[in-house]
Amino acid sequence: MIITMKEDATREEIARVIEKIKALRFEPHIDTGSKLAVIGVRGDTSKLEADEFYQLPGVASVARVSKQYKEVSREFRSRDTVLNIGGHKVGGEHPPFIIAGPCTVETREQVMLTAAEVKSAGAVALRGGAYKPRSSPYSFQGLGEEGLKILAEARETFGMPIVTEIKEIGTLDLFAKYDIDVYQVGARNMQNYDLLQKLGQVGKPVLLKRGPANSIDEWLLSAEYIMANGNPQVILCERGILPPIGSKLRYTFDVGAIPVARELSHLPVIADPSHAAGRWNYVLPLARAALAAGAHGIIVEVHPNPTEALCDGPQALKPARFRGFMEEVRALYASSQA
Amino acid sequence: MIITMKEDATREEIARVIEKIKALRFEPHIDTGSKLAVIGVRGDTSKLEADEFYQLPGVASVARVSKQYKEVSREFRSRDTVLNIGGHKVGGEHPPFIIAGPCTVETREQVMLTAAEVKSAGAVALRGGAYKPRSSPYSFQGLGEEGLKILAEARETFGMPIVTEIKEIGTLDLFAKYDIDVYQVGARNMQNYDLLQKLGQVGKPVLLKRGPANSIDEWLLSAEYIMANGNPQVILCERGILPPIGSKLRYTFDVGAIPVARELSHLPVIADPSHAAGRWNYVLPLARAALAAGAHGIIVEVHPNPTEALCDGPQALKPARFRGFMEEVRALYASSQA
Amino acid sequence: MIITMKEDATREEIARVIEKIKALRFEPHIDTGSKLAVIGVRGDTSKLEADEFYQLPGVASVARVSKQYKEVSREFRSRDTVLNIGGHKVGGEHPPFIIAGPCTVETREQVMLTAAEVKSAGAVALRGGAYKPRSSPYSFQGLGEEGLKILAEARETFGMPIVTEIKEIGTLDLFAKYDIDVYQVGARNMQNYDLLQKLGQVGKPVLLKRGPANSIDEWLLSAEYIMANGNPQVILCERGILPPIGSKLRYTFDVGAIPVARELSHLPVIADPSHAAGRWNYVLPLARAALAAGAHGIIVEVHPNPTEALCDGPQALKPARFRGFMEEVRALYASSQA
Amino acid sequence: MIITMKEDATREEIARVIEKIKALRFEPHIDTGSKLAVIGVRGDTSKLEADEFYQLPGVASVARVSKQYKEVSREFRSRDTVLNIGGHKVGGEHPPFIIAGPCTVETREQVMLTAAEVKSAGAVALRGGAYKPRSSPYSFQGLGEEGLKILAEARETFGMPIVTEIKEIGTLDLFAKYDIDVYQVGARNMQNYDLLQKLGQVGKPVLLKRGPANSIDEWLLSAEYIMANGNPQVILCERGILPPIGSKLRYTFDVGAIPVARELSHLPVIADPSHAAGRWNYVLPLARAALAAGAHGIIVEVHPNPTEALCDGPQALKPARFRGFMEEVRALYASSQA
Repeated sequence: MIITMKEDATREEIARVIEKIKALRFEPHIDTGSKLAVIGVRGDTSKLEADEFYQLPGVASVARVSKQYKEVSREFRSRDTVLNIGGHKVGGEHPPFIIAGPCTVETREQVMLTAAEVKSAGAVALRGGAYKPRSSPYSFQGLGEEGLKILAEARETFGMPIVTEIKEIGTLDLFAKYDIDVYQVGARNMQNYDLLQKLGQVGKPVLLKRGPANSIDEWLLSAEYIMANGNPQVILCERGILPPIGSKLRYTFDVGAIPVARELSHLPVIADPSHAAGRWNYVLPLARAALAAGAHGIIVEVHPNPTEALCDGPQALKPARFRGFMEEVRALYASSQA
Repeated sequence: MIITMKEDATREEIARVIEKIKALRFEPHIDTGSKLAVIGVRGDTSKLEADEFYQLPGVASVARVSKQYKEVSREFRSRDTVLNIGGHKVGGEHPPFIIAGPCTVETREQVMLTAAEVKSAGAVALRGGAYKPRSSPYSFQGLGEEGLKILAEARETFGMPIVTEIKEIGTLDLFAKYDIDVYQVGARNMQNYDLLQKLGQVGKPVLLKRGPANSIDEWLLSAEYIMANGNPQVILCERGILPPIGSKLRYTFDVGAIPVARELSHLPVIADPSHAAGRWNYVLPLARAALAAGAHGIIVEVHPNPTEALCDGPQALKPARFRGFMEEVRALYASSQA
Repeated sequence: MIITMKEDATREEIARVIEKIKALRFEPHIDTGSKLAVIGVRGDTSKLEADEFYQLPGVASVARVSKQYKEVSREFRSRDTVLNIGGHKVGGEHPPFIIAGPCTVETREQVMLTAAEVKSAGAVALRGGAYKPRSSPYSFQGLGEEGLKILAEARETFGMPIVTEIKEIGTLDLFAKYDIDVYQVGARNMQNYDLLQKLGQVGKPVLLKRGPANSIDEWLLSAEYIMANGNPQVILCERGILPPIGSKLRYTFDVGAIPVARELSHLPVIADPSHAAGRWNYVLPLARAALAAGAHGIIVEVHPNPTEALCDGPQALKPARFRGFMEEVRALYASSQA
Repeated sequence: MIITMKEDATREEIARVIEKIKALRFEPHIDTGSKLAVIGVRGDTSKLEADEFYQLPGVASVARVSKQYKEVSREFRSRDTVLNIGGHKVGGEHPPFIIAGPCTVETREQVMLTAAEVKSAGAVALRGGAYKPRSSPYSFQGLGEEGLKILAEARETFGMPIVTEIKEIGTLDLFAKYDIDVYQVGARNMQNYDLLQKLGQVGKPVLLKRGPANSIDEWLLSAEYIMANGNPQVILCERGILPPIGSKLRYTFDVGAIPVARELSHLPVIADPSHAAGRWNYVLPLARAALAAGAHGIIVEVHPNPTEALCDGPQALKPARFRGFMEEVRALYASSQA
């Protein structure tokens, strides 16, 4: 249930609505991003009467949200959410937010070299995995804390915010220790609800990848788990869905999910073309398509020496190709602003 | 098997290779699009020895095509095929080839009105269905010959080549009578091999839609059926694949298929965003994405009054929106040529 | 629309209803399989008023069929349809109808040898393909008429009705010439509506395979194309749907489709476990599962020498394994009748 | 890598192999279920030389396991694993192991009533969820500890082992407190590797459901996570895979996965027909099919009053129908043993 106050509602009127919500044992949530005060009512509101609120002074409208998600929805906030990450904006009409770096943190040298390259090409944030969920218990599972440390050093050196995957609740303390800028939730954890709830309590943006077998509704509901637990800083990331037998790409890049997610939600929507492509030469066509379809940014794998990568080398771009892509991105954005 | 002759091979040498192929009871096919003479050997060549040809004078190379398709493949022709349709070029670096019009021919007035609109907006060809394959025997199945007649009249009036679906072998004569410019094969007929074989014998371009459950290899093999039967004028058209449960779009638009098809084949690749979108407001993001990913053109549904359309109204663009799209297309092409 | 007459309705009353239907330019279809006269109204009845008929004498009820299919539906005929094929019954509570034989007719010897084996093991009908739809224009496409001739000879020798695939309208005459007992429609032709319409006019049972990407509704609508064109003898055949990436089986055998099809339709439902299995050792578990889920029969590939088969050898059963399976089938049926 | 010792290998020889493995910094795992000593080498053995072990006395063979999983594989243990759950056996040739009960623990009365019914009908174990993973943060998420308490009471009263879902690491202590007999891992947690690792350390059987979008290899790799961390008591459970658009069932029940899993692994394989069916009348055909295809047991939802169930009521069987099913199961097992 979403309660919108009149433009001239007083502080007292707003306070009275909030008290009423609490008295009925629900939790109020005030959105601060709009000109009008909008108050979400958290919890199972299916048996709550709209009239309870409609008669209060200062209330303009009381809407039952037909969809299962509330705070992530356009009904809750009509304007695009814009987040600030290390001084760069993502969302709305801001320039494409480009995150680049290796799939996996392998060595200090590899990360520093890649960071230097992608920074000079124009990327605004650095990616790299320290904790990798792997299908096999016998596969390399990342450098762990050592990886976080290397990323933090690269941030200091190059002034780029860092984006890295949080795989389990047990490592939240380490993420806080190294002050990770963006907590990435991988596709396999999109429905790990206990993790999502905890991410509702970190004060950092969460980049939520869509699971390859999950619908857009399930994706937005997972974002709702984070928002309903207190963290409004969520970035949605499309990364490809399960491909049919015989696909030449690793996943089917669901470019149509981008306009759909932007229609249903106010949250920023970015795309990861690397996993879907599976091979470097398909990465840029997918990245261009994502931006053309309305994505607010791209997260892409760049490796100084793809053939020696410990993980997913074939889909990594070489620095020179990434540089060419960034030139295209700037030209396209300039022409769209002309 | 593909035999490439030396640059200075004589006519006699080429003729000798062709005779040899015939003597071994295979069928030769000479590609005229390259500077070098390239001779394809049709039939099951799996037991043919390359040496049979390699020793002949003038032969530069003999390649076994590892893929199942031959004439549609990049191995057979490395340069993009460019087709000429009513004076307009499709393929290679030519401007996007835009086909627009109603899903179904309903009335003379509807077609003439739509043709006038899309022509003035900049479309080069007119689409419209006279024979509609429908899941139910009780659904409207198109106007038949009357529809072809209306399309032919629109062609005369507006000077636009016409694109319409051929559903069965029995109507080939009518298509010839009205001199249809492009024979469209719908997704459900992509593996109707008897129809494809017959389309190998018409002297007109065939627009081959990918079936929503077919792999790219199956799609190219279906194109091979047309080429191997004598018709080199094939246009590939991606139109969306089976969506997962819960999809907001009617089909999953497989934008990644565009760079893959362009890598594997020399044929022009266009996209139909209307069926995949299922709703008009998703059509343009998909169309932009397709062009950004490298499509040579777009086929799109435009209807002067979508709410009254007999078929697929919700996915049709209104003329004004189509006009805006054409302006974007021209601006993008201009900037890409700058 | 389905009109059910009262139990004591007279011939005249029935005739008057039929006249009325014709006067309104619809086509009546009387079902002869029920105690009560049931009259289906063919065509787009969406604008027809039930009252038009309800007031006529002798009419018990007028039902709008909510589903798109009518004559294939349980609403149209509540009892199971039972067909007679060469003196054997398929459908209802009759023993499982077992069709066995090679994927493809290769030689006279191969067919006669296989027929002798499967006959002595207890199969009631013989299968074998003379016309094979193949993805590649260069693959073996069957023996054609020679194959039909061999099957007809096997029928004479062993007294088994023959089941073989009809691939195109152009071969209907040959099927009539050899008096083929059951016309099989392969998965790729399930939505070849022109072929289905023609099969509405042959006086023989049609075995309609479900396309691997088709829903149960689409399958039943394709059966409706045959019934609405005059042929009530349709057998539905589940043969596996598109598998996910990584599947160990060639297709996902959709065992749940069997109870669903039996609930929605009165037609016999059989299963083809061979294509789904893709490997012989999975064939029998799938066949047992199909029968346990309620299938009326099984069509299965048996080859005297699978390793030398021209097509799909790995999924063919050897005669000895088929013999063991038939013993299980008889034991299960006996216990279910006890 | 799997090292098989000779039949007459001495304790000292076995000990020497184990020391060698440890010296190379790998972890040995001895299988106690076979006549021959079989020693698995845990860890990334890709760079380990077989010769290192082959030359040691008493070693019969050294096998590189080609598949990614080792301890779950038939190569590691050729005979079926049989587990003992509350005095009942599951696996091998033992009678079908039937687990029944409500989807969710709602009240003490509901559980006690259902337990009495399913016990008297012949079920050997009781199921019921206390912690429910839900797509929406606003849905009922189970009774929590109160639910475990009710289940434990039902176990005392009826002498049935209890099976319930473990959703997060944080509740492991509570599961231990109530001495839960079988820890069920739900489909959404199949790749929650941190949870799987922890379940490798509980001394109880783990029932591992296959994720609806996961391949059989991924399923077995998840089982490997549990076994490689020390717990050999794993039961595999097929529960349906993602259905195509238009499916009448909630999931596609992948009956073919049962023979495949039994071929690749020695672990017991059971089936959950309730979630796939989605409606009670499809549950029994799927259950029969699963057993016919070789499943070692069934886990099924039974509710005394399905229309009032808090969760998944439409797919719950009423007690009377479950009783009929158990009679069938006993008759089938008796006939298979005859």
